[in-house]
Amino acid sequence: MTITDDNTSVRNGVDTAALFATLDVVRQQPELAEFQFRATNRWISGTHNRSTINGYHGAGQEHARVHNFGYDADHPPVLTGGDQGPTPVEFLLHALAACLTSGLANVAAARGITLHEVSSTVQGDINLLGILGLDRDVRNGYSRIKVTFTVRGDASPEQLRELVERSQRRSAVLDVLTNGTHVEVDVCTV
Amino acid sequence: MTITDDNTSVRNGVDTAALFATLDVVRQQPELAEFQFRATNRWISGTHNRSTINGYHGAGQEHARVHNFGYDADHPPVLTGGDQGPTPVEFLLHALAACLTSGLANVAAARGITLHEVSSTVQGDINLLGILGLDRDVRNGYSRIKVTFTVRGDASPEQLRELVERSQRRSAVLDVLTNGTHVEVDVCTV
Repeated sequence: MTITDDNTSVRNGVDTAALFATLDVVRQQPELAEFQFRATNRWISGTHNRSTINGYHGAGQEHARVHNFGYDADHPPVLTGGDQGPTPVEFLLHALAACLTSGLANVAAARGITLHEVSSTVQGDINLLGILGLDRDVRNGYSRIKVTFTVRGDASPEQLRELVERSQRRSAVLDVLTNGTHVEVDVCTV
Repeated sequence: MTITDDNTSVRNGVDTAALFATLDVVRQQPELAEFQFRATNRWISGTHNRSTINGYHGAGQEHARVHNFGYDADHPPVLTGGDQGPTPVEFLLHALAACLTSGLANVAAARGITLHEVSSTVQGDINLLGILGLDRDVRNGYSRIKVTFTVRGDASPEQLRELVERSQRRSAVLDVLTNGTHVEVDVCTV
């Protein structure tokens, strides 16, 4: 266990004692690891719509946040949208950066490495001939996503690089974006 | 071209004249379809971090929004986070619902179908034994995502169902989430 200056087990804002305790509990009751996350979305006008994120199931029970999280999405004017929010594909880039960064902070804390900065830029290349239906040989989604991290902390460059490696090996979003997952779509037309 | 009651080409908030004009322009200059979207992220504390979304390249030039879009992400308390934002994987569900819904509204407008409601719920099942490193046989990401749409509009149930089908066939986010894409991660440790 890492003890920091303020005599707690908190490093980088991560409570490592709680983190290790959580791992121990789940190791003994693996069914607690089954989670279901959810979002609901409502169309507003044109390509503008809004999602609400709140409740989820996990650790054997339902959970609710104090407030709903709400997110607008839209297309930009160049795609005849109103720019009331980012495009849906931009949220994928946010999700990827966030997932890798959260994991990195946990791993650094667990290894006793104090971080000073973690920042990243994510770029996604996409040829819209796919979604516009103008070329059957062009896929709908990103052809390539590139993440560039800057990491500063009390460790060697090799150790800092290894934090990013480790966060990649344990990232839920990276897994879905690189390997895909099963998606089922149902429709009710009442 | 669809002419609605107010004598414009706007239906469901979609300017179909502009949409078809855009398609014509891109058909003649396919290089305009090359886009790059971006997000930047900064670690705040623990699993809490924030992304900024603004500039993108597309239609042959750089574009900037009037304001930055900013999004917090965090882990919930049950995963020793501070709940300062949704989890990164929840943003994937929002992105999926938003992409399918935007596409659906465009397709409906192009087909002259007036929509009254489009709402959806997205559920993603994930076993955290993967990201917690407790079971090598469990993947890190979602094992399954389920989207349930409710669509009401001036068309038959079959036609409304066909809108969802079509939006699936033209969805950038659905493509990435089901088929995956190439992701490259670089690190700078200065």
